[in-house]
Amino acid sequence: MTPTLKDVAAHAGVSRSAVSRTFTDGASVSPKMRKKVEKAAAELGYSPNFLARSLTTRRTKLIGLVSNNFHNPIFLEVFDLFTRGLQDRGLRPLLVNLSNETDPDHSVKMLTQYSVDGVIVASSTLPPAFSKAFRDKQIPVVNTFGRYASSPDVHVVGIDNVEAGRIAARALVARGYTRVAFLGGPEDATSTQDRRQGFKEEIARHASVASTDSFASAYSFHAGRTEMLRLLETGHAQGYFCGDDVLSIGALSAIKDAGLRVPEDIGIIGLNDMEMAGWENIALTTIKQPIKEIIDASVDLMVAMLEDPDRYPEARLFACRVIERGTLPPRI
Amino acid sequence: MTPTLKDVAAHAGVSRSAVSRTFTDGASVSPKMRKKVEKAAAELGYSPNFLARSLTTRRTKLIGLVSNNFHNPIFLEVFDLFTRGLQDRGLRPLLVNLSNETDPDHSVKMLTQYSVDGVIVASSTLPPAFSKAFRDKQIPVVNTFGRYASSPDVHVVGIDNVEAGRIAARALVARGYTRVAFLGGPEDATSTQDRRQGFKEEIARHASVASTDSFASAYSFHAGRTEMLRLLETGHAQGYFCGDDVLSIGALSAIKDAGLRVPEDIGIIGLNDMEMAGWENIALTTIKQPIKEIIDASVDLMVAMLEDPDRYPEARLFACRVIERGTLPPRI
Repeated sequence: MTPTLKDVAAHAGVSRSAVSRTFTDGASVSPKMRKKVEKAAAELGYSPNFLARSLTTRRTKLIGLVSNNFHNPIFLEVFDLFTRGLQDRGLRPLLVNLSNETDPDHSVKMLTQYSVDGVIVASSTLPPAFSKAFRDKQIPVVNTFGRYASSPDVHVVGIDNVEAGRIAARALVARGYTRVAFLGGPEDATSTQDRRQGFKEEIARHASVASTDSFASAYSFHAGRTEMLRLLETGHAQGYFCGDDVLSIGALSAIKDAGLRVPEDIGIIGLNDMEMAGWENIALTTIKQPIKEIIDASVDLMVAMLEDPDRYPEARLFACRVIERGTLPPRI
Repeated sequence: MTPTLKDVAAHAGVSRSAVSRTFTDGASVSPKMRKKVEKAAAELGYSPNFLARSLTTRRTKLIGLVSNNFHNPIFLEVFDLFTRGLQDRGLRPLLVNLSNETDPDHSVKMLTQYSVDGVIVASSTLPPAFSKAFRDKQIPVVNTFGRYASSPDVHVVGIDNVEAGRIAARALVARGYTRVAFLGGPEDATSTQDRRQGFKEEIARHASVASTDSFASAYSFHAGRTEMLRLLETGHAQGYFCGDDVLSIGALSAIKDAGLRVPEDIGIIGLNDMEMAGWENIALTTIKQPIKEIIDASVDLMVAMLEDPDRYPEARLFACRVIERGTLPPRI
């Protein structure tokens, strides 16, 4: 049977409190005592039970990892980086799938039942109310891929999506295009709204360039394909900024089926630079959102908040840049 | 502040034990008492703390979800279905990433620290020792996508991979091919070994058909592409059974770059039928592994084991079948 703290105390010939202190971060215990306890623990194969300990330390080391899009391949990279980043800090992700969820209170209830130490909301499509609902319950929260606010309510890590829209517009204008378009993600997502705003702002600076926009129903292949098929029925722009990479791949598939060539007939630029964008059979020109840096920073902020829950909310925004591949012609 | 069990008892004017029993599955409490407690809990916004309760119920409702491949898009579907399936049963997945892990003892230690109620090992590439290590610690375990054994050590849910290999061989022979090949996943994965065995067995029944085989280093796009590029240097077979869909997509990319046509010059059949296999720009002919049924069955088995930890280990194997799309020519 699994050895207990009591067994270790008996085996080491020390008090239970000494064993408890040895395995509690920051608790006082002499080096000699620590050595004795660790030896006994190793001999018995004892490892502390985080959850039983959580009743005294009030720390479970569980972090809720909340997402609502399991149809966008980038989330496989996001889950990989988050689980490894949290594991490296001795934390563990409790994965929460809000695919069909619209009520923040339900998620809050679900995660408070597990006494999570904190919550990472990894989504640009959940309304900001989700992150705030955790904050209002005094649960440390980081909104990864959230909306930049100059005075943030909760910690936000990501990119400036308005600036990303400007970068996309500049990349299309640099091809000499005079008819461009934004094919965005869901219209109510903050990422869609911000990317569109920056795109339109920048295009407005070029009197000779006209732009239109439309929205896919989700960040997914089929939503991108469906919207591009619809657009192609009534003519098309020269170059499209698609709201993200998976929408771009869906749009590319529609363009191919219409017998048009990329980049000769239509140019496409995406956003994210997920692994698949670099696959040789896709070779998507895209705006790189530095996912690894964003997730490392999110984990760092979470750890910092566990140490000081009263930290001022912070927005950590990373630069993004164009990765040139095969779906836009050379700049002119 | 978060209301406690004590607060609910006071508010309802009942004993703490009555509140505790109301929120414990299977505990005895009168309908009248339950109604009174639930009303008070709703008014205070109380929800039971699963972890504090776990000390008496010995149930945390946490299920370790162990995987080691975050570069294969099918795992996004796997995580989606598992998190929703577990959530629907009131269970929660603790995601564990063993990408760089070779020592089962370390994973066992990691998960026992969290007193998980059970572990789902969702992998066909982790050695069977991983699943057995949990069983040896009396932790209920299901190995999803594991190897079929006529007398299983642990619960296994998946397909008969030997039969899947036979189905692939028959599909290639049905095209009139006389030179076929298996481009498998990692050679030490049980799924690779079993798919290869069935493939070779079936091909051996056709004297006029020759087969060769080789292995990719991982179930990933780049591993499939690299191996197919290598094969194309020295000629190629007429039809390939690729170990899974993501390997197939990598192989297709290599074939395209070599200026060869699919299915005219080379035919490809994959395995899994992940969402992406059906994307119009991929249209992969593949053997469908019924993922949803496999994951539902895995969750059902886990729930059954939580009720009766002494259940006999069971193998639940689902039939698989060919999904005809665009990467094999018509049967002749």
